[in-house]
Amino acid sequence: MNHATGRVWSPVVTPFAADLAPDTERFVGHCRWLVDQSVGLAVFGTNSEANSLGVDEKVRLLDALIDAGIPTEQLMPGTGSCSLPETVKQTRHAVSQGVAGVLMLPPFYYKGVSDEGLYRYFSEVIERVGDARLRIYLYHIPPVSQVALSLDLIARLREAFPGNIAGVKDSSGDWANTQALIERFGGDGFEVYAGSETFLLQTLRAGGAGCISATANVNPRAIAQLARSWQAGDADEQQAALLRIRKIFERFPVIAALKAATARYSDYAPWAQVRPPLIELNGLQRDELYELLDAAGFDMPGLDKR
Amino acid sequence: MNHATGRVWSPVVTPFAADLAPDTERFVGHCRWLVDQSVGLAVFGTNSEANSLGVDEKVRLLDALIDAGIPTEQLMPGTGSCSLPETVKQTRHAVSQGVAGVLMLPPFYYKGVSDEGLYRYFSEVIERVGDARLRIYLYHIPPVSQVALSLDLIARLREAFPGNIAGVKDSSGDWANTQALIERFGGDGFEVYAGSETFLLQTLRAGGAGCISATANVNPRAIAQLARSWQAGDADEQQAALLRIRKIFERFPVIAALKAATARYSDYAPWAQVRPPLIELNGLQRDELYELLDAAGFDMPGLDKR
Repeated sequence: MNHATGRVWSPVVTPFAADLAPDTERFVGHCRWLVDQSVGLAVFGTNSEANSLGVDEKVRLLDALIDAGIPTEQLMPGTGSCSLPETVKQTRHAVSQGVAGVLMLPPFYYKGVSDEGLYRYFSEVIERVGDARLRIYLYHIPPVSQVALSLDLIARLREAFPGNIAGVKDSSGDWANTQALIERFGGDGFEVYAGSETFLLQTLRAGGAGCISATANVNPRAIAQLARSWQAGDADEQQAALLRIRKIFERFPVIAALKAATARYSDYAPWAQVRPPLIELNGLQRDELYELLDAAGFDMPGLDKR
Repeated sequence: MNHATGRVWSPVVTPFAADLAPDTERFVGHCRWLVDQSVGLAVFGTNSEANSLGVDEKVRLLDALIDAGIPTEQLMPGTGSCSLPETVKQTRHAVSQGVAGVLMLPPFYYKGVSDEGLYRYFSEVIERVGDARLRIYLYHIPPVSQVALSLDLIARLREAFPGNIAGVKDSSGDWANTQALIERFGGDGFEVYAGSETFLLQTLRAGGAGCISATANVNPRAIAQLARSWQAGDADEQQAALLRIRKIFERFPVIAALKAATARYSDYAPWAQVRPPLIELNGLQRDELYELLDAAGFDMPGLDKR
């Protein structure tokens, strides 16, 4: 189907204090700002350093968002891990809180696993969560997870659990795969999200749902604007403008660059902190990033500055 | 240094009940049997499906072994995960129980991370655990983790934490790397373990410590025998005999094959159960495995048959 309006989600970067503990207050503030910019919150994604967080930390952060009044329909937390019981625990908690959906990685320690093994894994999770409200967005990100979700696996899961398999995020970076997903599954409400705004316009024109993109942390309003107005006459120019900003961030380790930008425009240097094994940008990289952003007239207006 | 006697550790396979919960009683029994065969217990390794277990499950299983009277000097639990707090939690618990050491994976979600990032990660873990008894065996298994531990990283960690960095398990499958580790670090008590008995004799002759091997779950006595008698005249024949058995298991998905063999020789079919995303051997594979083992005169005498 063609969506009159596309949807954009941000895999929200996670702020850390100097002791590497999540800074809950700043996290809530950043999420509020993102919702105000018209993007949803795919908290605990790859760009959130979610796999560097513990299960308990993620449960507490999600509770904090809901306690702060963030609308649950804006929430698509990542809940996939290597471990069946921990994936079930996080997913059950998220669903019980009424989130719009969960973004689920496959178990990613063992490599070369079979579709049959992955089918059993997702089936177990769905049956153990045992909640009709569960809406899973499968997370295909082979460059990082090294475990791919094939079209046949997705088809089999959809057939077995039509009410629970709601969509897919395709972070393969391979437009042919995104296109194949839309062609095969996009016709009946299954939501195919591109893994970055690089393919946002193509995705929407092909009948996909939108994108879930790292740079929706820093450039949310413009990306959401294209998703809303993709049928307008200036859509191609909008897409080109998004790419100019995107390409700046892609020159650097992206998570560190997103946090460096957030640190700058919030006037709060600790935003640059990442958890190991990631490292922050060095001084030269940071200066180069800021110069490129200035040259592009980039800003993050209205960013939480407490 | 040359070790008069090498050491062998088994990455203990984890038995599951039909509901996929760990079968604690059978786990304890299998560990007792392994210790009786003269191999140590590298519980919660790759072959243990440790990354398919939750932190709480691993803590309970380790406690069960210690409550059952398994000597702590026989224990080298795997405690590495993607998440700093969970790695610290598991490591602290294991060290508080007095284990001989811990086998630590690098954080393995993010790929292409720097030595600096990995150095910060391991440093944080060591400082947070904050226990002089902590002895880390670094776990280098790039075919699975996709995150390698370079010689320079190991050198830097040893220099900063000489009392805590006790050794390395090299599961690269690359003898040149094992040899380089032994040459660079093996001279002063740092223990270099090969990741399988394929390289056991070479490792011991070069001055390494022994091996930590999947097939030490099923062929422990013979492997331990070579580690003890590697300077004997029949060492090469012993090594050749180990390889004949090893090669049978390598024809199949190894974890499923180890469990199928354990199921057979313990007369307890549920041993074959694995957790998804892994799958058990199919009937044809199982029959082929059993035929090959019979043809080789293989047995697992004395296996726990309760």
